[in-house]
Amino acid sequence: MALYSHDELHTFSQSVFKKIGCSAKDAKIAADTLLSADLRGVDSHGVARLSGYVRLWEKGRINPNPAIKIVHETPSTAVVDGDAGLGLVVAPFAMQIAIEKANIAGTGWVAVKNSNHYGIAGYHAMQALDHDMIGISMTNASPLVSPTFSKERLLGTNPIAVAIPANEEPPYVGDFATTTAANGKLEILQRKGEEAPEGWIQNKEGEVTTNAFGVKEGGALRPLGGDRSNGSHKGYILGSMVDIFSAVLSGANYGPWAPPFVSFMDPVSDPVGEGLGHFMGAMRVDAFRPADEFKDNMDQWIQRFKNSAPIDPEQKVLIPGDPEREMEAIRMKDGIPLLEAVRNDLSALGEKFDIPFQ
Amino acid sequence: MALYSHDELHTFSQSVFKKIGCSAKDAKIAADTLLSADLRGVDSHGVARLSGYVRLWEKGRINPNPAIKIVHETPSTAVVDGDAGLGLVVAPFAMQIAIEKANIAGTGWVAVKNSNHYGIAGYHAMQALDHDMIGISMTNASPLVSPTFSKERLLGTNPIAVAIPANEEPPYVGDFATTTAANGKLEILQRKGEEAPEGWIQNKEGEVTTNAFGVKEGGALRPLGGDRSNGSHKGYILGSMVDIFSAVLSGANYGPWAPPFVSFMDPVSDPVGEGLGHFMGAMRVDAFRPADEFKDNMDQWIQRFKNSAPIDPEQKVLIPGDPEREMEAIRMKDGIPLLEAVRNDLSALGEKFDIPFQ
Repeated sequence: MALYSHDELHTFSQSVFKKIGCSAKDAKIAADTLLSADLRGVDSHGVARLSGYVRLWEKGRINPNPAIKIVHETPSTAVVDGDAGLGLVVAPFAMQIAIEKANIAGTGWVAVKNSNHYGIAGYHAMQALDHDMIGISMTNASPLVSPTFSKERLLGTNPIAVAIPANEEPPYVGDFATTTAANGKLEILQRKGEEAPEGWIQNKEGEVTTNAFGVKEGGALRPLGGDRSNGSHKGYILGSMVDIFSAVLSGANYGPWAPPFVSFMDPVSDPVGEGLGHFMGAMRVDAFRPADEFKDNMDQWIQRFKNSAPIDPEQKVLIPGDPEREMEAIRMKDGIPLLEAVRNDLSALGEKFDIPFQ
Repeated sequence: MALYSHDELHTFSQSVFKKIGCSAKDAKIAADTLLSADLRGVDSHGVARLSGYVRLWEKGRINPNPAIKIVHETPSTAVVDGDAGLGLVVAPFAMQIAIEKANIAGTGWVAVKNSNHYGIAGYHAMQALDHDMIGISMTNASPLVSPTFSKERLLGTNPIAVAIPANEEPPYVGDFATTTAANGKLEILQRKGEEAPEGWIQNKEGEVTTNAFGVKEGGALRPLGGDRSNGSHKGYILGSMVDIFSAVLSGANYGPWAPPFVSFMDPVSDPVGEGLGHFMGAMRVDAFRPADEFKDNMDQWIQRFKNSAPIDPEQKVLIPGDPEREMEAIRMKDGIPLLEAVRNDLSALGEKFDIPFQ
C-alpha cells in the first residue's frame, strides 16, 4: 500500500475543510481530530471518511461555520449546542469546557446536541491527560445495532473511551465500540471475502449469521457479548447508556432516531431532538488524591498487568492504548498506508476542490 | 423451596448485624441493602451472604462501628474512608454524599477506600432516582478474572450499575458484572451438575473450559466478550476501568491486591492501599435539561425499545431493570424462596447469636 506522511494528509484534509467553508482554526481542529485516527490505526475513522463528511455538507447536513455555544450550565455540567457543525470540531470544544469545569469544580461533564460524527472517541478523552485529568468520551451513532431479543436496529456502535494518566508509564487509553465488533472490522472481512465469527451479526430475521454482508442486507450488529448466554444484555446496557447520556441528556436524537452518517440515507422525518449527541467528562485526579500518588499507583497497576503471566508466551498481556500508541510512532515515522479505494476517493476530492493529491 | 417474608428476613438480618456490634441505625441500613438483592432476584448477593459477612467480622476484617468520613473533597468530588466498615453501610453513606454534591454542583462523584463487599451495585445507583438524578455505582472485588491473554487472576467481576429516572415509565436500571457471567451463575451450574457455555471460564493454563468448577480449580472467569475475536478486550477495559475508578482514585487495593470476600483466604501481605474500593456518582438531570423534558424523552425511549419487533414473538425486548422490578413485586407478595443450604446457614447463625430462625 502507498504510504503518505501525516503532514501531507493533514494539510490536504485541512484544505478540504477550508474549501467547504470552515475557518482556518476549525479546519485545523477538524484535521487534527481526523488524522489522530489514521495515526492510531483506526483506518475506518480517518481520511477514509473525509469524503463522507463532504457529502453530508453537500446535503446541507453540516454547517461549516457553526456558532457552537453553551445553552445550559452548572458548576460541574454544561449542555453544548453544536449548531450542526462537524463533530470533529464540536467535540473538542465540549471537551475543553469539561476540562475548564473540572479545574474549578473537580469534575466537568458536558452533554452535546446538534452535532455530527466526531471521529474516534479516544482522541477526545485523551485531551484531558495533559491536565492530569481522567478523560471520558462517548457518542451515539447511526442505528445499526439490535438490542438483545430484537430484530430492529435501534442503537449505534456507541463507543466509550476513557484516558487515565500515569507517571513513568504511558497513559491508559481504552476506546471501544459497545458491540462485539465495530463496523470497520466487518468492512475488512467483506474486502477479503471472509466470514464473520458467530456473535458479531444477525440477519434480517434476527438469526445469527456469519455472512459479513449481513448488516448491509438488512441485519444488524449485535451488542458486546453476542448472545444472551454470553452476556449480550450487558452490551445492550452499555450501548443504551451511551445513547441516553449522549442524546437524552443533551436533547439530541436518540435510539433509532439518530441521524445516519451516510449521506444517501436521510435523517428521520420525525426527529425527537437535534442532530447527534456526545457526552464528555473530565475528572481532575487531585480532586480525589494527590496527583503524584495516583500516577505512581497507575504505574504499578500498568506494570503488574503488563508483566502478568501470559497464556501464550508469544502474546504478552496488553495495556489499553499501547497498540495504538505503538502504531502512531510507526506511522509518524514511516507514513500512513492508504488503500487504493481511499486514494481514489481523496484524488476525486482533490479534483473537486482543485487541491493537488497524488 | 421454603418461602420467607421480606420482613422476617429483614428483621433476622438486622438482629445479626446488631449482634456483631452494629448500631441500630447501621444494622437497618445493612439489612436494607442486603435484602434488596433477595427481593430483586440476585440470590447470590442477599441473605445467602450473611454468614460470609459474619465470618469476615470474626476474622477482624470488618469493623462493626466504623467512623466513616470524608478525607478529601472538592465541589463535585469526595473521597470517603470506610474505616473497614461493612460495604453495605459505607456505600449508602458515600452515595448520600454524591447526591448532596450533585444538589449543589450539578454532579457528585465519590471514591471510597477501606470498605468491604457492598451488596448489589444497582441498589446504590437507585438511591439517586427519587432526587431526579442519574445514579452510578461500581466496585472492585476479589480477583477472579483474567485480562485477555493472561492466565493470572487480576480483576474482580467489577460490576457497573446505572439508574436513570423516567416519568410514566418505571426507571431504567442496568446492573451487570463486567465478565461474561457472574460467579453466581456458575454456582447454579455447579449445583445442577451442568457445563458452562464456552467463553465464561478458562482453566489454570488459560484454555477455554466448559467445566463449571474451572475457577475453583485454579482457572479464571473471562471478561465480557469471552475471547479476543468476540471482544474480551472490551470487557477487560470495562473491568479495569472499574478497578481504577474504585481503587486507584480512592487509595484502596487494586487489581490482584483486592481483598478476597471469602474469609478463608487472607488478604495479601503487601497491600497497596486500604481495603476494597467503590465509586459512586450522581448527576442531577436538571443540571442538563429541565427534568420533565428529560423524563418524557426517557418514557419515549423506553416505549420504543420495549415495543420493538422481537426475534421470537414469545420473548419481548427487555428494558434493563424490568425483570428485577417484577421479581421484587412477586417476592414482596409471595415471599423469598431460600435453598436448604441457605436456610441451614441462617439457622446456624441464629443458634450462634441466639436469634430464632426457622
